[in-house]
Amino acid sequence: LKAPNTNSGYPCKPIANVTSDDFVFHGLVAGSTNNSFKLGVTPASVTNFPALNGLGISTMRVDIEEGGFAPMHTHPGATELIISIQGEVTVGFVTPTGVYSKVLKSGDLFVVPPGLLHYVINSGKGKAMGYVAFSSENPSIQILDLLLFGNKLPSDLVAKTTYLDLAQVKKLKAQFGGSG
Amino acid sequence: LKAPNTNSGYPCKPIANVTSDDFVFHGLVAGSTNNSFKLGVTPASVTNFPALNGLGISTMRVDIEEGGFAPMHTHPGATELIISIQGEVTVGFVTPTGVYSKVLKSGDLFVVPPGLLHYVINSGKGKAMGYVAFSSENPSIQILDLLLFGNKLPSDLVAKTTYLDLAQVKKLKAQFGGSG
Amino acid sequence: LKAPNTNSGYPCKPIANVTSDDFVFHGLVAGSTNNSFKLGVTPASVTNFPALNGLGISTMRVDIEEGGFAPMHTHPGATELIISIQGEVTVGFVTPTGVYSKVLKSGDLFVVPPGLLHYVINSGKGKAMGYVAFSSENPSIQILDLLLFGNKLPSDLVAKTTYLDLAQVKKLKAQFGGSG
Amino acid sequence: LKAPNTNSGYPCKPIANVTSDDFVFHGLVAGSTNNSFKLGVTPASVTNFPALNGLGISTMRVDIEEGGFAPMHTHPGATELIISIQGEVTVGFVTPTGVYSKVLKSGDLFVVPPGLLHYVINSGKGKAMGYVAFSSENPSIQILDLLLFGNKLPSDLVAKTTYLDLAQVKKLKAQFGGSG
Amino acid sequence: LKAPNTNSGYPCKPIANVTSDDFVFHGLVAGSTNNSFKLGVTPASVTNFPALNGLGISTMRVDIEEGGFAPMHTHPGATELIISIQGEVTVGFVTPTGVYSKVLKSGDLFVVPPGLLHYVINSGKGKAMGYVAFSSENPSIQILDLLLFGNKLPSDLVAKTTYLDLAQVKKLKAQFGGSG
Amino acid sequence: LKAPNTNSGYPCKPIANVTSDDFVFHGLVAGSTNNSFKLGVTPASVTNFPALNGLGISTMRVDIEEGGFAPMHTHPGATELIISIQGEVTVGFVTPTGVYSKVLKSGDLFVVPPGLLHYVINSGKGKAMGYVAFSSENPSIQILDLLLFGNKLPSDLVAKTTYLDLAQVKKLKAQFGGSG
Repeated sequence: LKAPNTNSGYPCKPIANVTSDDFVFHGLVAGSTNNSFKLGVTPASVTNFPALNGLGISTMRVDIEEGGFAPMHTHPGATELIISIQGEVTVGFVTPTGVYSKVLKSGDLFVVPPGLLHYVINSGKGKAMGYVAFSSENPSIQILDLLLFGNKLPSDLVAKTTYLDLAQVKKLKAQFGGSG
Repeated sequence: LKAPNTNSGYPCKPIANVTSDDFVFHGLVAGSTNNSFKLGVTPASVTNFPALNGLGISTMRVDIEEGGFAPMHTHPGATELIISIQGEVTVGFVTPTGVYSKVLKSGDLFVVPPGLLHYVINSGKGKAMGYVAFSSENPSIQILDLLLFGNKLPSDLVAKTTYLDLAQVKKLKAQFGGSG
Repeated sequence: LKAPNTNSGYPCKPIANVTSDDFVFHGLVAGSTNNSFKLGVTPASVTNFPALNGLGISTMRVDIEEGGFAPMHTHPGATELIISIQGEVTVGFVTPTGVYSKVLKSGDLFVVPPGLLHYVINSGKGKAMGYVAFSSENPSIQILDLLLFGNKLPSDLVAKTTYLDLAQVKKLKAQFGGSG
Repeated sequence: LKAPNTNSGYPCKPIANVTSDDFVFHGLVAGSTNNSFKLGVTPASVTNFPALNGLGISTMRVDIEEGGFAPMHTHPGATELIISIQGEVTVGFVTPTGVYSKVLKSGDLFVVPPGLLHYVINSGKGKAMGYVAFSSENPSIQILDLLLFGNKLPSDLVAKTTYLDLAQVKKLKAQFGGSG
Repeated sequence: LKAPNTNSGYPCKPIANVTSDDFVFHGLVAGSTNNSFKLGVTPASVTNFPALNGLGISTMRVDIEEGGFAPMHTHPGATELIISIQGEVTVGFVTPTGVYSKVLKSGDLFVVPPGLLHYVINSGKGKAMGYVAFSSENPSIQILDLLLFGNKLPSDLVAKTTYLDLAQVKKLKAQFGGSG
Repeated sequence: LKAPNTNSGYPCKPIANVTSDDFVFHGLVAGSTNNSFKLGVTPASVTNFPALNGLGISTMRVDIEEGGFAPMHTHPGATELIISIQGEVTVGFVTPTGVYSKVLKSGDLFVVPPGLLHYVINSGKGKAMGYVAFSSENPSIQILDLLLFGNKLPSDLVAKTTYLDLAQVKKLKAQFGGSG
């Protein structure tokens, strides 16, 4: 991982140096939900679990307190398979042809095709918890609010290209730490 | 194209039935800009140019009147290469690590990596025109406003998962034809 | 799924017929462990969850009673990522260059590269439970004992090509339902 | 690009060093047509536009004076999509099953499947101009005359393996700078 | 094979109908060398050995009488690995950067990267024989003379786009059965 | 090959340093059969023939004395195409759905899909000889006996996860050099 990345991932560790420890990851535990989303996320992908390099898969534990949610986001190039373990969530994604949404309970799965805009809301009582598996060892998580309001994109440009009111843009720019 | 699509594209036409006409497409001309975006788009992809099936490429002519723009959108799984022919546009994309934006004039190229949120604005005088090439024969065009406001996603759900004000959501729902 | 399979998976359902229900799977619950392995397996792959078609991922819930285990097996062409949820298991795989094995507890992950021979043993007290994710929507599960002893491969051929004693082969042929 | 190339392209630039300038290319203008082909070619591929690395696309501006042409050539592994902008060209490719050829005018497209032998002739009045898009960031351009006559392949070997007359081979060897 | 081909190959036979006979091919024997090339070719690819469908490999037996040769040709998209068994051949390929050629004797291998123009000449005494393996189950064999002179491409067009003399073109058109 | 390997193979040699010698391999001759299998294997893959890097193919000469055989083994991720040249062999592979086996004579081919457990037995009189082609430049050869008995996997663990008798395991551990 210290060498430069390539289009097909990182260079490989020499086989002679590989040990059993390389194939294990410790700590896929509940992440902190002390944030405005009441959302805890603990990822295990190639950046913190290098053995996944080239193997085309990664995972994440997701904990959502009552009333919490995962805001609108995408994972370019990666399928997301959700394994619902505890509680009740409402999950959905949108495409040019429609909205696909379901309520999930323990033992349910839901699949989000690659690159689609989606959300997950704790729609039940108490905490919700689950795992997601990605069809990529290095999925990107792109939260819509951060893309639009968390950087230096000029507010009037955001307003113009989204049809949001300028005041709305400025309000969310302030909330998500953006400038401009 | 009448047979069902597959993960690798449409079934192939029997070679004996293939003619020179299959490999040509007529009409990559200016599309109508008589819309709120002042944007004309003429695509040529596998759905209207079947010879592209399996060949991993497609194109589109884009015309933008003065003051017009292409709103925030994504193409999941497809690189977009912009060839600027006439006029001046400002193009940009956003990622979790930043904003990448340039002003393009005639003879400039700009590349948007797969699945990233981007926009194009006619930032000059007069009409702007160019071509885009996609690294897919069947790219999806996903306009953010239509994904959020052009369908039946409930307004309060959109508001919650985007932090937009409910009034803002309802206003744009009305504008883009959504319900809920 | 009623149409013939192809090298890239099954043909796709027409988009007009796709509904939210297609993307959900119910019943990823504990499978029966009432067998000689004390092993319960509940898979969700393209064969019982067709929405995974072309998306390159699938999953499985695995329950192992105390003293139980998953015998030596392979998944040709699919990475297996193990998410250990409850109890303690010992998991390992073998390659021409060595043995890679670890004890997993709750919150640990272990990855088995594609096609390698591996096993999972409940090495703790009480039941062990976890999920596995595969980098394929249609992974094959090939149990070594069934490959060698559960079919009509002649016993002397098995004995010759494995160096097992003929009596051993015949004993396991009887146990796993093979003939010859 | 200073590091060695790999089977999947060049190593990537560290994200921290990436700027907006990396994604733009200036100068896709008319190339000089002052040559025996009356052909001007201005390519933009990964070698002069490194941001295309791994993105699977590139482009080229092509200008052909009246009477000029692009001689028989191939692009191994890359689809070529031709966008005809100005003038009239006759383009064609050949396969073991036949000849596929069309006259193109402004607004026409033509697609050449990967690796096939093809040509483009200015068959109209005045200059012809267009763009081509390749389904590869690093397409090779292999001109038949240069492969056969522009190197040190012995003339008698060329004659034998092509059935061309030896005098013809020697004549073209002289024309295209080959020896032997 | 009766169903239409797709971008990823033919649809698959149902597993229940698959037998051992599907995986065997009989008759990879010497092909007739009674032709102007003194070349015998016996291919085994997906078209006559359907089990190769989707498996990415095929083979061919090649026999060349003394004085014979395989004329200049390409295999778009397929690597060719030559296993020299008997006799002596001279094999070579050409690229824009040069000529790569070797004399092969029994026990030698030579590899031709995908899509490159190459030839094989029996440069020794007596018959030469070998096998080739392709990195594709369905490689195309495109013989340069047939592409240029074996179809209805107009002679003057061939002459123009190759710089061959028109008389040369017409002579070879006659030899290889082309018209125009 | 001195640089670290990557997911897509080794870095490439600079084109300027490439010569004809890089594309040839000498010595695909009979390997020694002076071993317990009476099996001679001479491989030519990317590790001893670097030009195969990225080209997706490799080969191997196999000689089996009368009474000899290739024991049960797999090649994860690589199709194996067997070209039978001399003598008679019985080849077979096993899957969860059955046993697929044939007797091969000179001029026969047999294909083993990727990752399946298979064997080859000299079932005739005298020596048998053939070539195999792999759909990978770097196929792994995983012999079942070495995976189970040639390393430090504890004998009781092997016995448990294979249902072999412990005495059988210890006997083969001794034979194949394993410990534990």
